[in-house]
Amino acid sequence: MAQQHLDPTDPAAGAVTGDALAGYLRAQATEFLRSLRHHRETGGPGGAAGRVSPNPAAGGAEESVDAARALRRSARRISGSLHTFRPLLDADWSEEMRPELAWLSGTLALEHAYEARLQRLLLALHRLSGAAGFPSQPGSPGPPAAGPQPAGERGNLTVGAAKAGALLERQLTLARTRAHSTALQALGSSRFHAVADKVAVLASDVPLTPAAAATDLRPAAAAAEERLTDAITGLPLITAGHPYNAEALIHGLSPDPAPHPQDGPWHQVRLLLRLHRYAREALYGGDIPIDVRLLTAGEALDRHRDAAEAAGAAAQAARTPRIAPATAYALGVLHADQRHEVEAARFAFQQCWQKEAVKAL
Amino acid sequence: MAQQHLDPTDPAAGAVTGDALAGYLRAQATEFLRSLRHHRETGGPGGAAGRVSPNPAAGGAEESVDAARALRRSARRISGSLHTFRPLLDADWSEEMRPELAWLSGTLALEHAYEARLQRLLLALHRLSGAAGFPSQPGSPGPPAAGPQPAGERGNLTVGAAKAGALLERQLTLARTRAHSTALQALGSSRFHAVADKVAVLASDVPLTPAAAATDLRPAAAAAEERLTDAITGLPLITAGHPYNAEALIHGLSPDPAPHPQDGPWHQVRLLLRLHRYAREALYGGDIPIDVRLLTAGEALDRHRDAAEAAGAAAQAARTPRIAPATAYALGVLHADQRHEVEAARFAFQQCWQKEAVKAL
Repeated sequence: MAQQHLDPTDPAAGAVTGDALAGYLRAQATEFLRSLRHHRETGGPGGAAGRVSPNPAAGGAEESVDAARALRRSARRISGSLHTFRPLLDADWSEEMRPELAWLSGTLALEHAYEARLQRLLLALHRLSGAAGFPSQPGSPGPPAAGPQPAGERGNLTVGAAKAGALLERQLTLARTRAHSTALQALGSSRFHAVADKVAVLASDVPLTPAAAATDLRPAAAAAEERLTDAITGLPLITAGHPYNAEALIHGLSPDPAPHPQDGPWHQVRLLLRLHRYAREALYGGDIPIDVRLLTAGEALDRHRDAAEAAGAAAQAARTPRIAPATAYALGVLHADQRHEVEAARFAFQQCWQKEAVKAL
Repeated sequence: MAQQHLDPTDPAAGAVTGDALAGYLRAQATEFLRSLRHHRETGGPGGAAGRVSPNPAAGGAEESVDAARALRRSARRISGSLHTFRPLLDADWSEEMRPELAWLSGTLALEHAYEARLQRLLLALHRLSGAAGFPSQPGSPGPPAAGPQPAGERGNLTVGAAKAGALLERQLTLARTRAHSTALQALGSSRFHAVADKVAVLASDVPLTPAAAATDLRPAAAAAEERLTDAITGLPLITAGHPYNAEALIHGLSPDPAPHPQDGPWHQVRLLLRLHRYAREALYGGDIPIDVRLLTAGEALDRHRDAAEAAGAAAQAARTPRIAPATAYALGVLHADQRHEVEAARFAFQQCWQKEAVKAL
């Protein structure tokens, strides 16, 4: 690739054109096909349809999980590039391809998401229960804050945490198992085979527009970055930069069916950050310099999304009919804990983003 | 007073001796007697024993509340000075006086504490319910985080918040009413009259030791400050200085009967900070310069104590038998919210304390 040793952000450097995009898309399509083969060999429907396990993450199925992740990863990159560099690609083909890739990566992502959500919630319950020993504060001079409780009442909350964990495990394992079946069905469907066939063509033949070979990629990439920075400007970063602003839990007991519309703009920035990263990958080819800010910001936004969804799962579980009050109490504490994780993630994002913005001045 | 225009921290200045302490104690004793008279006139047992009201804070009884607060305020100052400047005062008298003053201010403080705790918790429930309108985020591009819920399930959580509020109101109002009766009984008791008589004597005649008139107050005051700074050194300030460290909730669901021994050292620092402030008052006489750091630190530690106790009350209410799961869930969210207030207060303390420490270098 001609642009590999150039800095595409250097205006004096030669233009990075549709050829670079084609190279990037071919590489991602090849990766997609490799992951798909790997997935079929390790547990996908093409290779071992009989091995549908309720716990696909255990044992040898781990490789299958990795393969599915790699498949999603390249699907997202192809889809993202189709979006960002739309004018350089055959419009009909793009419009047909994108929703199919979104369907595929969405379907494949669910199983892993439920698994990760459960792990996050169980870990939090463990932490909140002080389960791993009881670290006493050395040199604590004062008496403990609360008086002793009768043993029966004491046990209540532990039982609550345990029951909350069991309830979440039941609900999220069921959801994951369903997502697993759905993913297997999707991978065996004719809809999927049609996508895979198209990606196979893409691996050798990228449908660029006639003008693409002479079109500079950078304006489209810059536009993607601008969409990101515009969206970040809309975030309440001043509030987020004040620790313990208590914003994330502000509708924690709201009667509103969608109590956290405040999360939306952050989720949107997460997606735009991703598109910006993929655009950079297409632009730089193999020589992409590491941007610590993008990495850190992306991690903070992933954590934001994960904590928000975990908090939602805890609230949802609390609506299960006929649960014990102690279970509901534990789920309430857990919900609030995860909403504070949401707030902490916003703070982390603000810190890394503002720090670099100041440096850049 | 001879020392009034001197800076007692200036080693070149003349010594501040027992005379200054006597002046301070006389002033506090006079204030105590004035508050007591005021309290009797506005609702205390001496003036209006028949007016025992379940809601003593309402209407004209407000003055009585103010008077009780002023009474506690001077009782704490006398008691604190007896402790800090022990060697300058008649030992037998001091030893007899201090527990009586502690009993008195403790008894008088409870009613106000329950009232303030209830207000804090109801305010938090209100905030968590997003009750005051629903501020939508302008320009929110994404879909809301959670899908719509059936109306019946939706209502559940509001009912939960309302029921939690009603439960807390019932429990804390009962506790407050009891504390009010106990305080009235205490103020009418012979035990109280004995304390009041002693304070009346103190207003004119402070039992200094023979050597006190020639003894410098500053070493004792410096020792009080040292006990404070030593205790602060023992606090986990590095952790507290990292926002969102999630320490305060770490035993939120612990089976331990005293889940928050971590609060003890902070409560202890709060008391030592108070003793240091009173020692400065005795030292400076009427000319005490404002120390913003002490004020801010004291406010942070008050907030820490109040939030810790409110969190405890929410947890305690959740142990009420036969409450609805929705009520328990709301109390869990509330408990976690207040524990995060505890963490926020520690952060605020660390910020104000460290900032000044850096400035002082």
